[in-house]
Amino acid sequence: MRVLGLDLGGANVKAALISASNGQVKLHAIRRYLPIWKIGKERYGRSVEEVVQNLAPFDELAVTMTAELSDVFQSKREGVNFILDVIANTCEHFHVLDVKANLITPEEARNGPLNVASANWAATGWLAGKLFPEDRVLAVDVGSTTTSIIPVDRGSIVAEGLNDIEKLAYGELVYTGVLRTNIAAIVDKVPVKGILTRISAEFFASSGDVHLVLGNIKQEDYSVETANGRGVSVEEAMARLARAVCGDLELLCREDVISIARYVYERQLLQVEEAILQVLSRLKWRSAKVLTLGLGSKFIAREAALKAGLREVSSLEDMVCRGASSTGPAFALACMLLEKRSVSVSRDFLLSLRED
Amino acid sequence: MRVLGLDLGGANVKAALISASNGQVKLHAIRRYLPIWKIGKERYGRSVEEVVQNLAPFDELAVTMTAELSDVFQSKREGVNFILDVIANTCEHFHVLDVKANLITPEEARNGPLNVASANWAATGWLAGKLFPEDRVLAVDVGSTTTSIIPVDRGSIVAEGLNDIEKLAYGELVYTGVLRTNIAAIVDKVPVKGILTRISAEFFASSGDVHLVLGNIKQEDYSVETANGRGVSVEEAMARLARAVCGDLELLCREDVISIARYVYERQLLQVEEAILQVLSRLKWRSAKVLTLGLGSKFIAREAALKAGLREVSSLEDMVCRGASSTGPAFALACMLLEKRSVSVSRDFLLSLRED
Repeated sequence: MRVLGLDLGGANVKAALISASNGQVKLHAIRRYLPIWKIGKERYGRSVEEVVQNLAPFDELAVTMTAELSDVFQSKREGVNFILDVIANTCEHFHVLDVKANLITPEEARNGPLNVASANWAATGWLAGKLFPEDRVLAVDVGSTTTSIIPVDRGSIVAEGLNDIEKLAYGELVYTGVLRTNIAAIVDKVPVKGILTRISAEFFASSGDVHLVLGNIKQEDYSVETANGRGVSVEEAMARLARAVCGDLELLCREDVISIARYVYERQLLQVEEAILQVLSRLKWRSAKVLTLGLGSKFIAREAALKAGLREVSSLEDMVCRGASSTGPAFALACMLLEKRSVSVSRDFLLSLRED
Repeated sequence: MRVLGLDLGGANVKAALISASNGQVKLHAIRRYLPIWKIGKERYGRSVEEVVQNLAPFDELAVTMTAELSDVFQSKREGVNFILDVIANTCEHFHVLDVKANLITPEEARNGPLNVASANWAATGWLAGKLFPEDRVLAVDVGSTTTSIIPVDRGSIVAEGLNDIEKLAYGELVYTGVLRTNIAAIVDKVPVKGILTRISAEFFASSGDVHLVLGNIKQEDYSVETANGRGVSVEEAMARLARAVCGDLELLCREDVISIARYVYERQLLQVEEAILQVLSRLKWRSAKVLTLGLGSKFIAREAALKAGLREVSSLEDMVCRGASSTGPAFALACMLLEKRSVSVSRDFLLSLRED
């Protein structure tokens, strides 16, 4: 049996193919940088079709999306319908995730596009429930662009927000990520030679530069376009960070730039910690287990959870595998499809799964 | 006699041609949106050459720049030399402004590019000294992209920062403006239906949308590209502001969006007020006169100065004319050239000047 989960973001497309045969269960995980606002919706659609066709054949396909939010669409409604059209071009019958973590038909999705817009967090919450069926758990998924915090109480998702606005309000969605975040959206000042210095509001440097310079990510992890379109060497990342305070590497030395990076990193952790504490406050939870996933699983989600006083932190990467963590909702969707085909997706089953 | 001042920014190019004949002095002011990071440096250079050639003949030309900071250049040094080459293509002999408000030769500029990089504020300071020769005055220039605060003490510029980094540190430069500022660089949360809601870190809406929706600017003032490349109707601006909290005009009504705009405006005023208070604190000035100029002269610079407790606020637009205010440093440079040609640029002379 082969099941395919797809998470179609506006910047990154993720696919998780799980194949189960002869008692062996294997995951094939794919991430591809497809910036829809740059390449346009037509090329985006064709690239997604290619990804799906390359993974065929499969028995079931389920899709979730956040790409509908992109500027290339006038409204979420238009975006959802476009994504559904793209998938409909590749297979006759498929499932769509809704915000209640149900798999619904494309027709149902078209009738209520706002029920499936940006629903990918619900798959992640479902997965956290499967891994921690007896516990209160926060799933903290730190991706290239955004962070989702999904509270799950003994297998039931107890999120307050069902759309992006509500999630932004309640701390369940934070627009901060490992690679693409403009550092001007994280900080308004950074220390330079001892003085807190305002930064430029242009898009001169991104969080990827911060994490590359600090060694949190490697060059090959920096899989998106840089702020200035130049390369992903440490030197080029440093030049971008220097430019964020209107400097260059003639005016600032490496130590100056590392200080800037450390400060932005710390402030980014605070963004996530604040949201975690906000979510806990609504639920009146004193504590929770934490499941971290996404590109920033180890150095953002885990660190922010520890800052927030949560001590039982597990990463999906260590529990299952890196591909499961980096494709998060797509992987979870594939697991939902397995369950639909009467595979019992227990904690033990998940822990036995290995990456191809 | 005809003198031409040029202020070459990375987003906007401004030219001020002053012609004096038969006792009549007239200003011809030009602003053109030329985003160097989009159109590339070659097309930028050709467009600047066209602007200059269309204004010929003139007796003197002086140039200042901020475009050297753009991403299209690896360093400020490279950017300065590029700009000097562009002007050298249009006329044999010209002047370049340095950060001490001197007009130096192109050769001197090439020998010390960091002395002429982003020096345009010095021309504005010089002008403020001419208009208020007996006073302590802050010139507050709020442009499309940035705000400069230049302290002038009885005709002498007393700024602490001589380059962008220092100015950002000392509050003399704030990266906030009327049109191009990403609202995610002004606020991290906005009120939505009573709840402070996080905003997206993408470039979904800019300060131009805020000021258009609030009626601070008219459609024809919105002379730069919008965040999503769509139009400058109030409806389209509202859609962009809704998207900043991942909403659209199906999820949010006009009143919701106006509340968001009012909040961002208020926080932008605080950015400028904070910087004004910071500049005053270094100088130990209890008070100062304020000269406001730029696109945001009336609704940002003036309002922020009043918030900071400064009561004697005059706008260059009302004292001289709109063209002088909207081209600020370019106009001031032209006045410096007049003085070089032995015209006494007194307060009375300036007040007698009229726009073409």
